[in-house]
Amino acid sequence: MTPDDRFDAVPLPDREVFEQARSRQSILTKPASSLGRLEALSCWVAACQGVCPPRELTRPRVVVFAGDHGIAQHGVSAYPTEVTAQMVANIRDGGAAVNALAAVAGAGVRVVDMAVAADTDEKTSAYKVCRSSGSINVEDALSQEETLSAIAAGRAIADDEIDSGADLLIAGDMGIGNTTPATVLIAAITETEPVAAVGRGTGIDDAGWIRKTAAIRDAMRRARPHVRDTVTLLATASGADIAAMAGFLAQASVRRTPVVLDGVVVTAAAVVAEELAHGAREWWLAGHRSTEPAHSIALKHLQLEPLLEFDMRLGEGSGAVTALPILQSAIATLANMATFAEAGVSTDDVG
Amino acid sequence: MTPDDRFDAVPLPDREVFEQARSRQSILTKPASSLGRLEALSCWVAACQGVCPPRELTRPRVVVFAGDHGIAQHGVSAYPTEVTAQMVANIRDGGAAVNALAAVAGAGVRVVDMAVAADTDEKTSAYKVCRSSGSINVEDALSQEETLSAIAAGRAIADDEIDSGADLLIAGDMGIGNTTPATVLIAAITETEPVAAVGRGTGIDDAGWIRKTAAIRDAMRRARPHVRDTVTLLATASGADIAAMAGFLAQASVRRTPVVLDGVVVTAAAVVAEELAHGAREWWLAGHRSTEPAHSIALKHLQLEPLLEFDMRLGEGSGAVTALPILQSAIATLANMATFAEAGVSTDDVG
Repeated sequence: MTPDDRFDAVPLPDREVFEQARSRQSILTKPASSLGRLEALSCWVAACQGVCPPRELTRPRVVVFAGDHGIAQHGVSAYPTEVTAQMVANIRDGGAAVNALAAVAGAGVRVVDMAVAADTDEKTSAYKVCRSSGSINVEDALSQEETLSAIAAGRAIADDEIDSGADLLIAGDMGIGNTTPATVLIAAITETEPVAAVGRGTGIDDAGWIRKTAAIRDAMRRARPHVRDTVTLLATASGADIAAMAGFLAQASVRRTPVVLDGVVVTAAAVVAEELAHGAREWWLAGHRSTEPAHSIALKHLQLEPLLEFDMRLGEGSGAVTALPILQSAIATLANMATFAEAGVSTDDVG
Repeated sequence: MTPDDRFDAVPLPDREVFEQARSRQSILTKPASSLGRLEALSCWVAACQGVCPPRELTRPRVVVFAGDHGIAQHGVSAYPTEVTAQMVANIRDGGAAVNALAAVAGAGVRVVDMAVAADTDEKTSAYKVCRSSGSINVEDALSQEETLSAIAAGRAIADDEIDSGADLLIAGDMGIGNTTPATVLIAAITETEPVAAVGRGTGIDDAGWIRKTAAIRDAMRRARPHVRDTVTLLATASGADIAAMAGFLAQASVRRTPVVLDGVVVTAAAVVAEELAHGAREWWLAGHRSTEPAHSIALKHLQLEPLLEFDMRLGEGSGAVTALPILQSAIATLANMATFAEAGVSTDDVG
């Protein structure tokens, strides 16, 4: 990366506000620590917002990054490539899982075509970098230039959303074959053997799993030499969708905006984003643990403990959006509960 | 119980609709089974409602059953008894955790005084059975008559809520000392040793834990002879709040109304309700797993797997309400996602 492309230093969530939030939790009308993990979540949000009590989330936004992957031609997915563009339209039209879930959570959804093989509408493809990404078992996913364009696009999309008032961001993924580059990135950065990291994606059979593992092994052989050079690693083994997500997640942290992470593809981008902008992970919460083995490896690497474990493996941001109401619940307790003094409740004076 | 007091037979959720829901999940625009546990939840709700796609929950209701317990005088709690009445007022006035959480989940909250030692307002105490329940380590909690009144009250409250349009019910608890009878009931019915079941309640120290374990051991000695006679067991070792919750939970199932269970006190009442009305548990979902050991024992006994594990131990229905948006999310996917045909998305034809 040139100096201009580098991310600004990532600030930390406000430690002082975190402590204020902890103190406030202790004067609310409930036994100390009895809200368990909700208390920690509420303090984290307050620290991210820099204010206690924290504000209700008024404009959480999901951005789904879509792209095709050359590797999908190698039998690593249960679905044909044409599904990517069809699902982009479905998300745009409000019919996908992420739309149904976001409506419950009060989040807005936007889909961006970064590298779909087919044409998508003008608005959706405004940031499009390429038509599919290279087949990473035999060639680079992207040129160096395409990689930088994709990272810059993700960064611009984060800026755009935050400037439009987004107070929490979720990245989602849509792309047939995308768990393969995601697994390669995670395994390469965490130095994991392919067989320990490969999962069934959206549902492949045993023969498909063997093909996928072979593809991942070949792609890792190409990727490993570049693990210390993040942009080259992305060029070698990602795709414009994943590179854009990495830029998006890094920039969200630079802009002090909390993020709920989704499954294996988004979390692979997060592992990369932490390399691009150290400390970015302080602004992230893991929404769920998917069934993909590489997802657990990535969460452990980022030291994040997921909120939900529902065996979801859909992508689109669906797991993160399902977890979002829990964060809103945590905020509500810290922001809206009465204190012992306000409610005239006797405090702990027995034990 | 007299024949008139017995609960009607509990119907099963509609098996045919469950299968319709399963089939519908398979034609929605996502890989098969990729929503994991949300799919099972959505099918369960559809089966409870008897209609597929299921309806959005429009009137979920939380009823908090409040009561004092004589055992609290024996040093088993970190809080003084007067807190029960103060917290009843706090819940009524909207300042408690359950109120903050219910607002996020779109649920209404009602608090009923079944056995608070102090006076509460007229509306809250309309079903009041007694002032505190007996100290169960040395005496019965309730007379046989009080027990039947409490069960009948819970039943009437369930009827009242369902007749007013409630489409999902949550029971909550409020009462200093109430984890002690809850633990006794669970340990007695599941034949568990006291030390394996006793927890820290709202936060007692080691000396308190020893006092609580001794009290539970003594109470269990009194309770064990009555485990096959549910009403007598409740008279011996519950309290009017817990007996009312048991009636409420049993009647909800008789009335085909799904329930999200909360922590150890509510789940103790649920274990009893299953004895009062076999099959009732088919209408229940476990919202969370609390830190109380007896809670896990009760969940296992009822064969329920909780949605959340956040180390919550507050009661009031707080854990159940925190889980409620997940159920609403599950419903939204089954009700609102596009099918492959509607969205023009190619179905699985590669793998």
